[in-house]
Amino acid sequence: MKHTAAAEKWSVFEISCDGKTEGNPFTDYNITAEFESPSEHKTVAGFYDGDGIYKVRFMPSFEENYRYKVFGNFSDKEFSGEFSVTAPSEDNHGPVRVHNTYHFAYSDGTPYYPVGTTCYVWELQNDELIAETLESLKSSPFNKIRFCVFPKSYCYNSREPRSYPYEGTPIPGSLVNEDNVWGFGPDSQGNCWDFTRFNPKYFEHIENCISKLQKLGIEADIILFHPYDRWGFSTMTAFQNELYLRYVSARFSAFRNVWWSFANEYDFIKNKSVDDWERYAEIIVESDPYGHLRSIHNGVKFYDHTRPWITHCSIQRAPEGTSDWRKIYGKPVVIDEMLYEGNLQYGWGNISPQELVRRFWEALCRGGYGGHGETYIGKNVWWSHGGVLKGESSVRISFMRKILEDAPSGGLKPKAMEWDEICAVPEDEKLAADTGYHLFYYGIARPAFRNYHIDDENTYSVEIIDTWNMTVEKAGEFKGRFRLDLPSREYIAVRVKKV
Amino acid sequence: MKHTAAAEKWSVFEISCDGKTEGNPFTDYNITAEFESPSEHKTVAGFYDGDGIYKVRFMPSFEENYRYKVFGNFSDKEFSGEFSVTAPSEDNHGPVRVHNTYHFAYSDGTPYYPVGTTCYVWELQNDELIAETLESLKSSPFNKIRFCVFPKSYCYNSREPRSYPYEGTPIPGSLVNEDNVWGFGPDSQGNCWDFTRFNPKYFEHIENCISKLQKLGIEADIILFHPYDRWGFSTMTAFQNELYLRYVSARFSAFRNVWWSFANEYDFIKNKSVDDWERYAEIIVESDPYGHLRSIHNGVKFYDHTRPWITHCSIQRAPEGTSDWRKIYGKPVVIDEMLYEGNLQYGWGNISPQELVRRFWEALCRGGYGGHGETYIGKNVWWSHGGVLKGESSVRISFMRKILEDAPSGGLKPKAMEWDEICAVPEDEKLAADTGYHLFYYGIARPAFRNYHIDDENTYSVEIIDTWNMTVEKAGEFKGRFRLDLPSREYIAVRVKKV
Repeated sequence: MKHTAAAEKWSVFEISCDGKTEGNPFTDYNITAEFESPSEHKTVAGFYDGDGIYKVRFMPSFEENYRYKVFGNFSDKEFSGEFSVTAPSEDNHGPVRVHNTYHFAYSDGTPYYPVGTTCYVWELQNDELIAETLESLKSSPFNKIRFCVFPKSYCYNSREPRSYPYEGTPIPGSLVNEDNVWGFGPDSQGNCWDFTRFNPKYFEHIENCISKLQKLGIEADIILFHPYDRWGFSTMTAFQNELYLRYVSARFSAFRNVWWSFANEYDFIKNKSVDDWERYAEIIVESDPYGHLRSIHNGVKFYDHTRPWITHCSIQRAPEGTSDWRKIYGKPVVIDEMLYEGNLQYGWGNISPQELVRRFWEALCRGGYGGHGETYIGKNVWWSHGGVLKGESSVRISFMRKILEDAPSGGLKPKAMEWDEICAVPEDEKLAADTGYHLFYYGIARPAFRNYHIDDENTYSVEIIDTWNMTVEKAGEFKGRFRLDLPSREYIAVRVKKV
Repeated sequence: MKHTAAAEKWSVFEISCDGKTEGNPFTDYNITAEFESPSEHKTVAGFYDGDGIYKVRFMPSFEENYRYKVFGNFSDKEFSGEFSVTAPSEDNHGPVRVHNTYHFAYSDGTPYYPVGTTCYVWELQNDELIAETLESLKSSPFNKIRFCVFPKSYCYNSREPRSYPYEGTPIPGSLVNEDNVWGFGPDSQGNCWDFTRFNPKYFEHIENCISKLQKLGIEADIILFHPYDRWGFSTMTAFQNELYLRYVSARFSAFRNVWWSFANEYDFIKNKSVDDWERYAEIIVESDPYGHLRSIHNGVKFYDHTRPWITHCSIQRAPEGTSDWRKIYGKPVVIDEMLYEGNLQYGWGNISPQELVRRFWEALCRGGYGGHGETYIGKNVWWSHGGVLKGESSVRISFMRKILEDAPSGGLKPKAMEWDEICAVPEDEKLAADTGYHLFYYGIARPAFRNYHIDDENTYSVEIIDTWNMTVEKAGEFKGRFRLDLPSREYIAVRVKKV
């Protein structure tokens, strides 16, 4: 038995033990560990990592001394030990939690404003491309990325993954060439996988990617199931899915930047019912000891986001409904798909950067959070493979993120003002009152001026923000009713703060 | 007694008689005439035109010999006469009627595709400005213009009209200066008008404007009531409204290019109930012998356009609902307001020309007709005063009108194709089958290519239309399934015709 020496708060403490190899170690044996410190006591499932090695991972939440015991039929021996947990390093703020009902914060209280992108299978590409994606992310606005555990077979997504999650080989007919853009293979019931034997290297690779994201301050919004499959991973049995979920949870949960996205387009997965989803949710709730964020993303029909296991709404739709969804679900609204910047032949992947940026601002000023994706035709399509960002939206989304981070802490909520504008104020009522912060946004409207009236008592400093050209211009200080000249252009915001 | 010599088919034949002047000739006396030819027999109400003159106007619909008799207590004498009706001149196609359920045609069968604009009180401006408006209309795409009988008091609409429809003078407090952009005066109940005595010159002037429009081939979509008033014309009694409607009908109905728009934003007129509107409709149906087109335009809430007196839907809303409204109402859909190109401070009047043109195409390809308005801040705002067109949409609307006129005759209907495109085909099924005409439109989508499959049998010639840059480019001839490279730009249409 060995374990990692380093154990800073919210890091992965890993125990590694030799164990039995007869039969099928993935299903015939189990390994569990109990961790105890003055402030917490957790029982954590481990997993078989191949080559006779069993592991248990644990994410400690307190700077205390911990003791642990390892149990299970994986070995005839029992193991135990102790370790002490040190303070988190500077960029380690812990896992993200829901904060202030509609927003998020890291566990140490630092606000977290999700600015997500989607690269469905970036981590299943070759090393060079993965490195390129990470490099792109480094200088991007994105602090969350959605991606799949299973490979994806869809238009512009037809490459074979770098390896497979199970022992076995794909049936030859399932291998399609790049010209078959839809890439659906033959009936996957004829697959040659052993769904009871995982390929630990496949998951270890994904863990390396999660760690690299973590170093960049990016949350890994991990998609557990999706419908776009030619290998048979979307049609496994309930038993096989449970094995999978428990294996993934045992491996990934200790990474602080993990979020669980139960599905991409759950309603397009015809072989799973709401009862199935509820059962899968139960398995993750039960097996993830840290309660990472959980969501389920729709194609057309929303899941019932009021379900208690759902921590936040993950939505595919235009952002105009954000204010309503906040009311209906009483949870953070993250619009992970609002159409993508690009030029694909499909309507979901060919809007202009202007329109995507508009949608981000629309979501923001309605008290929610938008999501990015880029779908320009080329060798690598960002939304699928990652690579290089070619579009014009991401730099404007960086600008928007800066505006959001400069706002009073804790997120924004919509405030009803005139019918033809949207306006955001701080979610926190005291902060809203103290700062008088208002962020008006005009979208495609092009007013030459607007009239304002926040109140009669206070003086407000006013700035005109061109969200597309990324300029902030001081307009002066005003009191009572005032008129503001605006540039008769689209995509203008106005920021007002109490002097 | 005298009458106009010229009486071509669908022109105004006018009889003018001296009559009594004691008391109130507008209410104390009546004048009616009966017209008879081999093919028609109509009884038509006349009106008092001031200075002891009573008039009856008649629009003959047949090239035949007519006899008439004039009745009424306006005179102790009876008058009669005869006249012959000649063929219509080249540009006279008669009044516009509903054709093919969802479309329009002139009475001689020539298709009429409405391409409307709004200039609420252009005809109440000074002579110079009126001339300028007519000059602008001459080189514009517009073949319909919406305007009010009564003056309008609203933002950017605060001028006094050139004269008033009634005898009397406005109460001094109702005169507001141009700086009061909202322009609502004091309670109009204190007005000094005699609502039983019209000012014939006011109406004669409007008739001159209707005639001038007619010469330009433009339909006059006359708004009978509207809420934006500081003179008391919107709060007349039911009796006064009936006098008004009968007077206007007697004066205007014989002009072939008249359409009746019962209201602008009927639901913003709080003092008139649905019962009132139904009664006003009854009066016009009864008094207009020619059954001119009739509609009622909403602010927010649609009127029940299934009502039998309504000939077509006049709608204020974004055009995406057009295909649904066709199904719901089974009538032509004319979206007279879809927001205006401009830079006013209000969201209804500050969209880009690109967006307005997009809305026109959206309406067209969903089987309806859009409406234009221009609201750039300046001395004269087109939508209110007329004047000069400053925007960039009208030239693109001309281009669209040309595309529509080049389509198979009789109008277009939506055809369900892919979820992310709209497509129009000829309304007439035989024409649709014979021509194979399809007009696809992609709006803000920017596909680099699209796949098509009309059928396997026919060869189709395909053109790519850039609706903003106004170009039509031949893409070639195709059969069966084919792929078309597109320019990855917004506002692209594709026109397909059977070879």
